[in-house]
Amino acid sequence: MTDALPAVPPPYEPTERTVPTRSRHRAAYDRPLVHAILDEGYVCHLGFVRDGAPVVLPTLYGRVGERLYVHGSTGSRPMRMAGGAGGGADTPGLPVCLTVTHVDGLVLAKSAFHHSINYRSVVVHGTARQVTDPEELRTALDALVDHVVPGRAADSRPGNAKELAATAVLRLDLAEVSAKVRTGGPNDEPEDAALPHWAGVIPVRSGHGTPEPAGDLDPAITLPGYLTAH
Amino acid sequence: MTDALPAVPPPYEPTERTVPTRSRHRAAYDRPLVHAILDEGYVCHLGFVRDGAPVVLPTLYGRVGERLYVHGSTGSRPMRMAGGAGGGADTPGLPVCLTVTHVDGLVLAKSAFHHSINYRSVVVHGTARQVTDPEELRTALDALVDHVVPGRAADSRPGNAKELAATAVLRLDLAEVSAKVRTGGPNDEPEDAALPHWAGVIPVRSGHGTPEPAGDLDPAITLPGYLTAH
Repeated sequence: MTDALPAVPPPYEPTERTVPTRSRHRAAYDRPLVHAILDEGYVCHLGFVRDGAPVVLPTLYGRVGERLYVHGSTGSRPMRMAGGAGGGADTPGLPVCLTVTHVDGLVLAKSAFHHSINYRSVVVHGTARQVTDPEELRTALDALVDHVVPGRAADSRPGNAKELAATAVLRLDLAEVSAKVRTGGPNDEPEDAALPHWAGVIPVRSGHGTPEPAGDLDPAITLPGYLTAH
Repeated sequence: MTDALPAVPPPYEPTERTVPTRSRHRAAYDRPLVHAILDEGYVCHLGFVRDGAPVVLPTLYGRVGERLYVHGSTGSRPMRMAGGAGGGADTPGLPVCLTVTHVDGLVLAKSAFHHSINYRSVVVHGTARQVTDPEELRTALDALVDHVVPGRAADSRPGNAKELAATAVLRLDLAEVSAKVRTGGPNDEPEDAALPHWAGVIPVRSGHGTPEPAGDLDPAITLPGYLTAH
């Protein structure tokens, strides 16, 4: 027997719409990179077509393996559009584009033209379908909560029958996926090197402030460990 | 003569697609609120329809009065789609949805169902058209740079003829616009008050790190005032 090779997951297969027409060197299809970008965020921008026109809404998401989940009220437009009559795998689903973006820095060049942003983004194309299996629904809802605050799903009251009935969850498989990443300093023209303007990168940081307890919170309930680590 | 009344701009007119089906109390059409949300950001998510399917891409934007500008390579897909043959006001333009979102806090409730996000977002529907007027092009490009770093456009080399020819700018009028805002703590059910889970808000902050000069920057060029204020 030979030693087991380390598991290197295959990259996502590029498609016509995940290969950019410009800046192709910034596109990537690495599965671990895509997962890392997705796992660092919790708000995506979900695009769909309504009456022939695009709609882009910010919404929370969660990831379980190669599936993303978004949720909303059963009465909201995208949920109604994706669910159809009864929902489930036999409905046509809703074609969507789900995009997650992290801004890492402002890139200031000597020329206005070469100003840029350091960022990491993931764009997922696919068809969102309503989750109807009760077990998958629970898993998805836990993932949505834990994606924002890891460890939180286990430390809150799970949804009851009424709440679950009011919540629609859509699943989007990670199949047609690309990441795009820009790093590093400005790419100024050599002939601009002597210009008297400052050039470089301003890092952009995101962080958390001091937790603010709810007004009616029993003071005996102290901040749990998964929040003090924030 | 009477004293001049303070200029209170009229709100944006709600339309069928800017009135949400859910959480209507969070929707707003106030012009100053919309402007403030737009001016605090610089990355938007731009949605358009390509071959019948939605596409959502992160991109920079700038605001000049009641107009938003986005830009890109003349060879990029949305720019080609919006510009048509020759571009300008006589082209059909590209129906878009432009969304800007700021996350202000994580809202942790005692019940999983009432977990939420404090946020401010603006959604703009409309038709993006390529800017062809040279003066408007300059104004738009300055606005795009100054939106990221106020004061920067005047402290960088403006685009030359070749760079301007390679850059397409799209204009989107602020007409069909809505803001959505959530603030405050969790809205738990009264019967959950005694549950032992911590509840409250974790503020989310965005900030800037120490500027990193470009590798080839003349050390005699010190950080300009508009950057030290960051």
